[in-house]
Amino acid sequence: TELREQMQDRCTVDFPVAVVLPAGGSGERTGLTTPKQFVTVLNRPLISYTIQAFERVSWIKAIVVVVAKETQDLMQSIVHKFHHVKVKVVQGGSTRHRSIYNGLQALSEQTDGSAFTKPKVVIIHDAVRPFVEEDLLLKVTMAAKDQGASGVIRPLVSTVIATTTEGYLDHSLERAKYRASEMPQGFLYDVICQAYQRCSEFDFEFGTECLHLALHYCNTNAKLIEGLPTQFKVTYKRDLAAVESIFKETLSQSVCIITGGSAELAGKYQKHLSAHNVAVDIKPNTKGSNTVSLSKTWNFIQVSVNTSSLCEILDLVQACEESSHSLLYPVVIVWVLLKGNERTCPSQKTDESVTVKDLAAELLQRNVLLYGVSLDCTVVPEQLERSMERLCQITLCLIKDRNPALTGQLLEV
Amino acid sequence: TELREQMQDRCTVDFPVAVVLPAGGSGERTGLTTPKQFVTVLNRPLISYTIQAFERVSWIKAIVVVVAKETQDLMQSIVHKFHHVKVKVVQGGSTRHRSIYNGLQALSEQTDGSAFTKPKVVIIHDAVRPFVEEDLLLKVTMAAKDQGASGVIRPLVSTVIATTTEGYLDHSLERAKYRASEMPQGFLYDVICQAYQRCSEFDFEFGTECLHLALHYCNTNAKLIEGLPTQFKVTYKRDLAAVESIFKETLSQSVCIITGGSAELAGKYQKHLSAHNVAVDIKPNTKGSNTVSLSKTWNFIQVSVNTSSLCEILDLVQACEESSHSLLYPVVIVWVLLKGNERTCPSQKTDESVTVKDLAAELLQRNVLLYGVSLDCTVVPEQLERSMERLCQITLCLIKDRNPALTGQLLEV
Ligand SMILES: [Mg+2]
Ligand SMILES: [Mg+2]
Repeated sequence: TELREQMQDRCTVDFPVAVVLPAGGSGERTGLTTPKQFVTVLNRPLISYTIQAFERVSWIKAIVVVVAKETQDLMQSIVHKFHHVKVKVVQGGSTRHRSIYNGLQALSEQTDGSAFTKPKVVIIHDAVRPFVEEDLLLKVTMAAKDQGASGVIRPLVSTVIATTTEGYLDHSLERAKYRASEMPQGFLYDVICQAYQRCSEFDFEFGTECLHLALHYCNTNAKLIEGLPTQFKVTYKRDLAAVESIFKETLSQSVCIITGGSAELAGKYQKHLSAHNVAVDIKPNTKGSNTVSLSKTWNFIQVSVNTSSLCEILDLVQACEESSHSLLYPVVIVWVLLKGNERTCPSQKTDESVTVKDLAAELLQRNVLLYGVSLDCTVVPEQLERSMERLCQITLCLIKDRNPALTGQLLEV
Repeated sequence: TELREQMQDRCTVDFPVAVVLPAGGSGERTGLTTPKQFVTVLNRPLISYTIQAFERVSWIKAIVVVVAKETQDLMQSIVHKFHHVKVKVVQGGSTRHRSIYNGLQALSEQTDGSAFTKPKVVIIHDAVRPFVEEDLLLKVTMAAKDQGASGVIRPLVSTVIATTTEGYLDHSLERAKYRASEMPQGFLYDVICQAYQRCSEFDFEFGTECLHLALHYCNTNAKLIEGLPTQFKVTYKRDLAAVESIFKETLSQSVCIITGGSAELAGKYQKHLSAHNVAVDIKPNTKGSNTVSLSKTWNFIQVSVNTSSLCEILDLVQACEESSHSLLYPVVIVWVLLKGNERTCPSQKTDESVTVKDLAAELLQRNVLLYGVSLDCTVVPEQLERSMERLCQITLCLIKDRNPALTGQLLEV
């Protein structure tokens, strides 16, 4: 963060920057029927995460998403549903290069005043690389402005070999001299447009690398920037599992405990959760305060001393929806029901579980995952410590897994 | 399977084949402190899965695992704990090539009659590629026998570029002409040994590719075989998430229902599970029959009409342990408790959950995950259909997640 601030001080982006996201791929390598940019991860298409990564960067004003004709409506509905405000959807061409060129042209159609006017620098990225961060975008952008072109590279994971036409080894490359070319890449808008104007039909048809076109047709040697392994491209089905696991890991790093009048227990809870490296925020209640938007978490623990507090949960859900919180990621609410000195009347347990189940089924439609956990507080202090640890484990497991099939269950510590 | 049988008919492996598994890497790229071959996935170190992949191939008789001095004891304990019977652990050298050469030499130390005698063909593989299959091993082995050397290749995922010393693009390679060199590779034992005897100190220190040594020092052009994306190498932390997800996916494709005298319900259950593409096996009971070893599944559903059937669960666990079933993967037992016409007496629910919780805690230590689900059977037929579907969803979720923190819970349909 400090480094980022320093960099931002040194190199303010005081010129227009736009993004072109080619998203016309068919995704045959994942083995799925849906193109991978439209596969949903935690109820949201992958491409929406990538768009979000650019939208949260203040100095990026325009994002052109280039899609196949068949998926234009789908893409428009995604833009609408997830409130993407910097996006223009454009129809692509028959190859990746034709699509990128279409996207570039869409940036010069508008007159002055629109975000979609000719930019100084354009960033080209893959729709299926959702983990791009502002630091890297800044480096790519500044290098493109200074050098005309820039690109991200990574060390090669495997040795690269040349094969004979008969399928035998011809020679292997010296690994240290080569790099994998990754995304994003940045270009002066005039450089990349000129490259496309000058390049051949063969390039449009079979070329894979924009950096190569800039070199060949504009004599621009791209500045290369070392990327991070986290900025990987979703290529195979297993990469989708990795993406989901990274999102879940990231989402489960913080919780907000709403004490419901039981501050002491909330304190103990916080101590245990902190020991598991979870950042904990404590709020007395939801109503009135701007709990949700202040908390920057997608996990809420509502502590309750009686079942009437199901209405506390409704308040919380309302707050999540008002701030569009549950639009971006599924919100988890763990409803912790304290069993106090009053002995449970025989039928109460069943009643609670029915109520929680009904509410949970409704909330699931609204991207809120509600789980119940009951905790017996009548035990001796040492046992309560053990119970709190167990409660933490259950809570963290519910938060990490974000499993829709278990919502509405009333678990027991 | 048919293809495999055809191939095995055509090319019987009637010569000795051994494997060398270099496992000395430090795994710095995963960002973890444990070298990645020793990271546990579902309670078992990654390298044990890779060893298992070779051990289940009948014509592979000897596996030499080469590890750093510091991890020799750890490796021996893994071999012991997971009953690996074809393995010899050998100390490695300071580089990958020195380690492989140590491994090769360990294959000529024994006199005739031992599995660790000089083989005809040796397969070299990565400890961190657990998904290698017999088909591919057979192709690699036969090609190595015929051509002297063979290796697996994959298309390049990224464009490969050459960089200038100042960090600029020099040129990009034409992607179609190059391939990524992957593992396994196969060699005539005499070829690879001769290559190492002739190669330079520089090769031992900085070389990365055995195929290159065979070409350069023995004039042997390796036959190249196209591999599958599933045979990937665990390189980054995200790859471990992918591995776990693949194991879980594979494990959750079949279940065995033990009817506990309720054949009708088991039939309904089977119908619903089959609709979710799960292979279902039905057995009347555990006792006596060889349920576990016949079933080839790691998921059991015990249907019970009364709580006394907790002893049925103990029988099942015993059967799993006797066949070393729970040694390889965590076994899931979903205990489905039918709530019949007799109304539950007020305190019964609590009693059941306490018992299940205690048993589950004990079984967790033995790599068995026990979950309870209660089902109300007193409802009208249409509602029962809905309940069965919900039961399936819960069952499949428990089986897929294999989450230790939720064992012992008594869930409700
Ligand atoms: Mg490219
Ligand atoms: Mg190699």
